[in-house]
Amino acid sequence: MEGLWFKEVEQGRRFVIKIAPGESLAQRLVEFAHASGVKHAVVVSAVGSLRDVRFRGIKTGARLPITPPRIHVHEVEGPLELLALTGNIFPDEKGEIDCHLHVMGGRSSGEVLGGHMLDARVFATCEIVLTEILADGLERHLSKTGGVATLFIDAQ
Amino acid sequence: MEGLWFKEVEQGRRFVIKIAPGESLAQRLVEFAHASGVKHAVVVSAVGSLRDVRFRGIKTGARLPITPPRIHVHEVEGPLELLALTGNIFPDEKGEIDCHLHVMGGRSSGEVLGGHMLDARVFATCEIVLTEILADGLERHLSKTGGVATLFIDAQ
Amino acid sequence: MEGLWFKEVEQGRRFVIKIAPGESLAQRLVEFAHASGVKHAVVVSAVGSLRDVRFRGIKTGARLPITPPRIHVHEVEGPLELLALTGNIFPDEKGEIDCHLHVMGGRSSGEVLGGHMLDARVFATCEIVLTEILADGLERHLSKTGGVATLFIDAQ
Repeated sequence: MEGLWFKEVEQGRRFVIKIAPGESLAQRLVEFAHASGVKHAVVVSAVGSLRDVRFRGIKTGARLPITPPRIHVHEVEGPLELLALTGNIFPDEKGEIDCHLHVMGGRSSGEVLGGHMLDARVFATCEIVLTEILADGLERHLSKTGGVATLFIDAQ
Repeated sequence: MEGLWFKEVEQGRRFVIKIAPGESLAQRLVEFAHASGVKHAVVVSAVGSLRDVRFRGIKTGARLPITPPRIHVHEVEGPLELLALTGNIFPDEKGEIDCHLHVMGGRSSGEVLGGHMLDARVFATCEIVLTEILADGLERHLSKTGGVATLFIDAQ
Repeated sequence: MEGLWFKEVEQGRRFVIKIAPGESLAQRLVEFAHASGVKHAVVVSAVGSLRDVRFRGIKTGARLPITPPRIHVHEVEGPLELLALTGNIFPDEKGEIDCHLHVMGGRSSGEVLGGHMLDARVFATCEIVLTEILADGLERHLSKTGGVATLFIDAQ
């Protein structure tokens, strides 16, 4: 089907993860993946608080592909309530663990900020529920059209 | 229990879905449901980027039922980082596939916008993880009180 | 592993929950947990609309532990589109059901507000999908470092 790919996958193990104050969220998730042997996974839920949140947004009116001049990097000291962490873990072209995560955080004012997460430090706590996905034929490659690392599904 | 209904459901198949740049998110999800035979499902995760995002909010101070003068439709050209897509697929009164989806997107400034999604185009990519729900007695009907199509659960 | 704890858990029952207009979201979720016998759970999805949303944010520049002078409580009449409800249900130190929920809601303007949810009333509807987690050794205690009730995982 043009423009649409899908694949039935098996659900693997389910994990509850906790990351301590001051730790890097991105690094600790990669460490979790190595320690548990998880290769493909999806974040089901994340709750807690963050500081020093680095994320990027795409500049208004930008066209594809997404290139460095077309993105805007933010660094917010916070702390922010961690309101959502969405995304997945899939191997990149070299088979290395690659987390694709989008983050949303709530400011003191109640406003919500967010974008494609580069990294963040845990503030008071971070509690994550994650489900392993058992599947072949799911890989992340650089998309020439999109300019970004993108999930490819080899069959339907 | 007054004001609260719940039902244990079986988890069915789990899918990873990818939608290509330029495609309609709403239409492609309906196509996915037809092609896969999914009748009831919940979106577990969605990550990527969107443009031409149409969504509605409820006007401040509005009362029930939700009627057209009580909502405000937004169209945001973007592109926006797709930060969350929450919602479910349940059949409507005619048995047709009906997606009830709420969307949040991040602007270049880091601000987050969102509401009840009417439609959006995929910008660079859109990666969705979705779980099928196997259940009888779950249907969506127009709620006279609420003014909107609402999930009804026939037993507890 | 310093600063990182994780535990494989079993997935239990899956529930679809509906809460009626005017009801307290926090109270009804606790009632659901009592009625169904659920002790540990994670919210997979929530969609609908809310009013009288009370939530807190952490003051910008605040340090640990989180204390009452370091938080800011908001009450938003709305109604707001319910865009996400993330979090989990775990017993507290006395074994009582304790919901740790973060909420995001969309205003009429399309802006998104959110934080650590204290409570909210359902506006038109609220549809939740929740998964039970079967696990020993997961408890919530007050963290002296963080100042807030925090999930503790007793093994790796």
